[in-house]
Amino acid sequence: MNIEKFQIAEFNQSLQQSHERNFHHIAENINGLPEILQKLQDFQVAIPSWALGTGGTRFGRFSGGGEPRNIEEKITDVGLLHALNRSSGSISLHIPWDIPENAAAIKALAAQHDIRFDAVNSNTFQDQPGQAHSYKFGSLHHTDKAVRKQAIEHNIEVIRYGVELGSNALSLWLADGSCFPGQLNFRGAFKHTLDSLQEIYAALPSDWKLWIEYKAYEPNFYSTTIGDWGQSLLFANKLGPKAQTLVDLGHHLPNANIEQIVSLLLMEGKLAGFHFNDSKYGDDDLTVGSINPYQLFLIFNELIEGMDARSMNHATDLGWMIDASHNVKDPLEDLLQSVEAIMIAYAQALLVDTKALQAAQQDNDAVAAQEILQHAYRTDVRPLIAQARLLSGGVLEPVYFYRKLKVREGLIKERGLKTVATGL
Amino acid sequence: MNIEKFQIAEFNQSLQQSHERNFHHIAENINGLPEILQKLQDFQVAIPSWALGTGGTRFGRFSGGGEPRNIEEKITDVGLLHALNRSSGSISLHIPWDIPENAAAIKALAAQHDIRFDAVNSNTFQDQPGQAHSYKFGSLHHTDKAVRKQAIEHNIEVIRYGVELGSNALSLWLADGSCFPGQLNFRGAFKHTLDSLQEIYAALPSDWKLWIEYKAYEPNFYSTTIGDWGQSLLFANKLGPKAQTLVDLGHHLPNANIEQIVSLLLMEGKLAGFHFNDSKYGDDDLTVGSINPYQLFLIFNELIEGMDARSMNHATDLGWMIDASHNVKDPLEDLLQSVEAIMIAYAQALLVDTKALQAAQQDNDAVAAQEILQHAYRTDVRPLIAQARLLSGGVLEPVYFYRKLKVREGLIKERGLKTVATGL
Amino acid sequence: MNIEKFQIAEFNQSLQQSHERNFHHIAENINGLPEILQKLQDFQVAIPSWALGTGGTRFGRFSGGGEPRNIEEKITDVGLLHALNRSSGSISLHIPWDIPENAAAIKALAAQHDIRFDAVNSNTFQDQPGQAHSYKFGSLHHTDKAVRKQAIEHNIEVIRYGVELGSNALSLWLADGSCFPGQLNFRGAFKHTLDSLQEIYAALPSDWKLWIEYKAYEPNFYSTTIGDWGQSLLFANKLGPKAQTLVDLGHHLPNANIEQIVSLLLMEGKLAGFHFNDSKYGDDDLTVGSINPYQLFLIFNELIEGMDARSMNHATDLGWMIDASHNVKDPLEDLLQSVEAIMIAYAQALLVDTKALQAAQQDNDAVAAQEILQHAYRTDVRPLIAQARLLSGGVLEPVYFYRKLKVREGLIKERGLKTVATGL
Amino acid sequence: MNIEKFQIAEFNQSLQQSHERNFHHIAENINGLPEILQKLQDFQVAIPSWALGTGGTRFGRFSGGGEPRNIEEKITDVGLLHALNRSSGSISLHIPWDIPENAAAIKALAAQHDIRFDAVNSNTFQDQPGQAHSYKFGSLHHTDKAVRKQAIEHNIEVIRYGVELGSNALSLWLADGSCFPGQLNFRGAFKHTLDSLQEIYAALPSDWKLWIEYKAYEPNFYSTTIGDWGQSLLFANKLGPKAQTLVDLGHHLPNANIEQIVSLLLMEGKLAGFHFNDSKYGDDDLTVGSINPYQLFLIFNELIEGMDARSMNHATDLGWMIDASHNVKDPLEDLLQSVEAIMIAYAQALLVDTKALQAAQQDNDAVAAQEILQHAYRTDVRPLIAQARLLSGGVLEPVYFYRKLKVREGLIKERGLKTVATGL
Repeated sequence: MNIEKFQIAEFNQSLQQSHERNFHHIAENINGLPEILQKLQDFQVAIPSWALGTGGTRFGRFSGGGEPRNIEEKITDVGLLHALNRSSGSISLHIPWDIPENAAAIKALAAQHDIRFDAVNSNTFQDQPGQAHSYKFGSLHHTDKAVRKQAIEHNIEVIRYGVELGSNALSLWLADGSCFPGQLNFRGAFKHTLDSLQEIYAALPSDWKLWIEYKAYEPNFYSTTIGDWGQSLLFANKLGPKAQTLVDLGHHLPNANIEQIVSLLLMEGKLAGFHFNDSKYGDDDLTVGSINPYQLFLIFNELIEGMDARSMNHATDLGWMIDASHNVKDPLEDLLQSVEAIMIAYAQALLVDTKALQAAQQDNDAVAAQEILQHAYRTDVRPLIAQARLLSGGVLEPVYFYRKLKVREGLIKERGLKTVATGL
Repeated sequence: MNIEKFQIAEFNQSLQQSHERNFHHIAENINGLPEILQKLQDFQVAIPSWALGTGGTRFGRFSGGGEPRNIEEKITDVGLLHALNRSSGSISLHIPWDIPENAAAIKALAAQHDIRFDAVNSNTFQDQPGQAHSYKFGSLHHTDKAVRKQAIEHNIEVIRYGVELGSNALSLWLADGSCFPGQLNFRGAFKHTLDSLQEIYAALPSDWKLWIEYKAYEPNFYSTTIGDWGQSLLFANKLGPKAQTLVDLGHHLPNANIEQIVSLLLMEGKLAGFHFNDSKYGDDDLTVGSINPYQLFLIFNELIEGMDARSMNHATDLGWMIDASHNVKDPLEDLLQSVEAIMIAYAQALLVDTKALQAAQQDNDAVAAQEILQHAYRTDVRPLIAQARLLSGGVLEPVYFYRKLKVREGLIKERGLKTVATGL
Repeated sequence: MNIEKFQIAEFNQSLQQSHERNFHHIAENINGLPEILQKLQDFQVAIPSWALGTGGTRFGRFSGGGEPRNIEEKITDVGLLHALNRSSGSISLHIPWDIPENAAAIKALAAQHDIRFDAVNSNTFQDQPGQAHSYKFGSLHHTDKAVRKQAIEHNIEVIRYGVELGSNALSLWLADGSCFPGQLNFRGAFKHTLDSLQEIYAALPSDWKLWIEYKAYEPNFYSTTIGDWGQSLLFANKLGPKAQTLVDLGHHLPNANIEQIVSLLLMEGKLAGFHFNDSKYGDDDLTVGSINPYQLFLIFNELIEGMDARSMNHATDLGWMIDASHNVKDPLEDLLQSVEAIMIAYAQALLVDTKALQAAQQDNDAVAAQEILQHAYRTDVRPLIAQARLLSGGVLEPVYFYRKLKVREGLIKERGLKTVATGL
Repeated sequence: MNIEKFQIAEFNQSLQQSHERNFHHIAENINGLPEILQKLQDFQVAIPSWALGTGGTRFGRFSGGGEPRNIEEKITDVGLLHALNRSSGSISLHIPWDIPENAAAIKALAAQHDIRFDAVNSNTFQDQPGQAHSYKFGSLHHTDKAVRKQAIEHNIEVIRYGVELGSNALSLWLADGSCFPGQLNFRGAFKHTLDSLQEIYAALPSDWKLWIEYKAYEPNFYSTTIGDWGQSLLFANKLGPKAQTLVDLGHHLPNANIEQIVSLLLMEGKLAGFHFNDSKYGDDDLTVGSINPYQLFLIFNELIEGMDARSMNHATDLGWMIDASHNVKDPLEDLLQSVEAIMIAYAQALLVDTKALQAAQQDNDAVAAQEILQHAYRTDVRPLIAQARLLSGGVLEPVYFYRKLKVREGLIKERGLKTVATGL
């Protein structure tokens, strides 16, 4: 299932007139348009390999058809997305679900699709067949040294895979925690985790980062050993400059002010990056921007303001990744919608009149501050995104194009109706 | 793995002296002791067949050993529990996980263990192999009539199985809902569900009940079609007197006052019964009483007060069932702890000085009301439960006995180390 | 402080060119534009009298200047708002904070400002000087008949005031509840409340409605006697056709799906109307649309769809009111922002392609449903609202105009710097 | 209103027999009883001066009678509590509500009642009459240097008051935050706060501590500048060894695992102490142990385990204070209940079999860990508390005694029926 350039060109042609009308309307009102378009073109969101297949819940899974059956097909899928939106130029692999047996071939395939390898992810929340020790009671925090050792070695192995592919970060999420009061000694668990992380940290190549994700709950339902940003930051500070905190939007207690957390982590130089998704209740892993797009905008507003204050490069100095699980949507359509939502929030944040906002903040003028933010938010920036995509060789309306070309039908023809992605 | 009477007798003998000391201490302070002991002996909690194996989360499952491999072994496990605590005298089956191919033999086996068949549970939240239509987008609320028909027929089939076994209630939990705004027309979903329920209701034998469970979220993460007690009650009222609302402790939004809900449902004559478990975050399905035992007591306090006001029989006029999922505990030990926690809350509620409480309420004397409730709650009622168990032929300390007799080791020897219960 | 027509005309003139450019851009893409503009002009949001002064929390209040000191000045303030946005054509009074001593004069004043009297609000959550019985332990649910009687009579008195002014609904919010387990008998409280409501219901004029608001918690922190929509609906159904449920956006437990509640209440013919505000944590009473504007849109989407299905008149068949409390903003600016946010959500909901949405729902096409909803939501509808305002004689940009004319400074000159609105 | 020793003796005599029976029953089962009784006698809980009058909500206040009208009467009230329970031997003052005009006289009065002065509290969340700058938009985080300076000087003044009275800690809670997105620059607010805190820190006497409280929300409803333990710890670490984090049980997002936070703060040597209360929804400030007593026990379990691991003195090495607000109870009765609940949780935690628990934790034996914890929790420790009280000269049943002696009636006779405590 390849997308040909002429197909894109034909499609774009058919929407050109309407697009130009919309683009010119917004363009006239924007200062620094070329710079904004360039930033939009540069911005890339990594696709996690596990989001390419239909997800599930503990109550069951309802697979879709044509899902990728191996790492090669996963790269092909990301290539498809990237061909359409030109904003999905990297993939984040998960070991052991996506072991690159032949790194050179895998890299060549990715290069063909203009795809980079983002952070690599380890997995110590499931037992693999033949594994010596079980992670039932945790991994890096385990009371048994042998289990910790196995988990440390797995992480170091994941780094090795990453080095071969040109990755430069290990993204680490631990399910370690407890389900019942008394089950765990919290300090002991913290100290074991720190010891384990220090061994992994020591194995990092000099230009690598260690991204430490936190999560309030699930799959453990009483405590999680890296449960909030404060705990993650404690670890990152004790480990050293390569260690940073990774924020996943769905990993908080109800009503948390995530934008404030982001701002403070950036201030401390300890924000690694983002796992984007949306949620209403818990770690629901829904399409980015499907539940609360204004919150996403507010987060981007803090990111841009904080990165600019530190002269950081938006496109390269933080990790941007989707982490969602698509239970009732076609995974590729869902990812197109998620990337679009991220680009919209980013574009809106770029439109905020920072100077006016700072003045309003200095005066405690909450009314003016809201007007300034909501003016940017209420602006229909879709023509800007579309224009950036057009300039990069993508399609004006990715979801529409995807359906018109019957991409899923093509994938089903190639791969079959009953496929389950590895790792799902 | 059979528990012999002499083993129980020997064990109890070893603890007899200490038990008597404790029992006599509390007994002297209690009015109406014989009646309370009788109520404790009469009270029985149904064990759901799916709680006999190790549960899991969407991130994985870590099975234990010696788990029951079929309906017969599940009944045997409940028999084991009942032999120990004499309070687990019924089982709640789940179709299609526990299809009773030979009802007569199954009934004979259950009778041997002094086990009754509680409500039967249908399953329209998973697709079974060979099923004509998928429940990916719901069952009784589905936009497609054919899917609804299939789900209705399944429920009617479950009733038939229940009739054969001597059950008298269909317990119905629907995962039907939506993951994204716009996916569902709420009114349409409600009306389809009502139509479907009416067909199922029409198929109920005259002495049967339909228990309608509600749940705020999961596995759907935007809306659930029967999402709270208000919606369940709407359905139950539209259906008729056989339909009632089932309350599961973990199926609420954060901070819900469940005891008030219970009280009002009882007032309306529409409380079907309970699914007991405990939780800190969502539907965590933890051991009953492991997180917030005071809440459990407050619920029982409302139940007893409300049932007494309607002259209901505590043991028989509501459905009492555990619905938990044991990810890190031996399932049988977990169930022993859960039943014990329920018995403790029930005993504490029986000790509440109702007249004094009513007087304090009449005077808006919140201090006295709290003293009265907490006096009952802080009383160590474990000797009462133990005494009731002793009178019924059970063991004084079930968990301790279970470990001393190495029951799990026996089950592993019989069934193997790697077993997964049907349905898990 | 009067706004003169020529001031509005001059101001609008200065923004005319830019407005027309924006309006024509959006107008070309919209079907049925005249009808939509008419609906936007017809739509009116009631202003509660207590929102015209600075609010406060239990930790203190920081008053602003020029606040209205009596009912006449409150009506003048609403008149100011309405002159600007032409969408605030009614006021909701609160007794005893706003007793209309001379109804004829008050009505004349309101008519002068083109202001109608929306629902009247009773207050049984505070003790007034000289009151015979205290509401410390509740009002309509009180264990003491004398307290209930006093509260019933107060409500009937409020109806009388409302009749004189031309109101046609009594809006009733009860703080009644309990702070501690055991303090209250839930059934007793429900029954007392029902008895009390029946007496009030009997006193309603034939064309009046009784709006029953619910709230999960605060100022009581254990239980609230009308705590959720299910309880409010129970009361409304037991009372009769004049009784309906009023929804306040901030009165729910965390993560509640309010749009589903709205849809079901509409389906049952029992939705009275809305108290608009926004919140992040609890009943924060923030500016409408300041925290989660997409949720507001989703609610309007259900309202429009549900009202259209019952052929209801958007403007007149439900009660639309703001209920916010402005702690750090100029109250009038805040209300202008709130009304604007409501109009935006309403306009976006009017743009939803209902037929396409229904088709997507029928097909369980969550991707398409989201595209359809978000297309309407992402459309910048501000030029539509501005145009409707222009057609009605209002100003293009109310907040900007308000500041440019230094309205607050004028009010301070008239009323003084240290004023506290009655009731605050 | 003085309690005479003979009154206590007579009262205790009347309950002696029953108490002895209960005490001996539990005493036989406990190892190290004398040491436990000594610890219970040594443990003292500070009473905040503002908890001695009836609290209120933003919706109103319903005062009780006989409330203390000045600092002297507040000390007298704490003296009353301490005479009864011998566990309330200190008071925490709040400036400017309780300015000690004559420190020597105040100290003499306190000494007479055997009362110590715990941490002093500053107040920058309300404006006082005649204050130069308003705290409407915050204090230590304010964008205006003059406001920050005023707030810094107030805190330094509070330290001076504390020094005179023999206090040795400044307890600081900031309401600083924002109500709307955009209102505040988070980094700017953090940095301003840090600068301000550094000035206050510099003014601390050498043996003093600075306790930094955090709170998730209220009275600000979008962000709080010291919003969670992670932020408080960041400040405390940047300030130095005298700065520590204070935990208030009601200041968290829903479902937070407070016991884990406590454990980690202790591990880092940064736990200052506790503000005890209970809550169901937010910062409800209810009686300690009235909603979730098991959580209180779990927190004490972590405290004792963590303090013992660092060889800390339970009674003196952390700050223990109640921070509640009594809206519907007699404040003194409420405080007696709160102190009793704290003593019960402490006693239960002392009974935990630490060695067995550690062994269960090492084995990941969640069932055994729960049995161990719940065995201690289910033990009726009230006779232990009563015995400790008896040994210290207190009364066996404080609430009962308080009512029997008609203490409130006496206070009303002395002070009048309509009194409002200063600061309320």
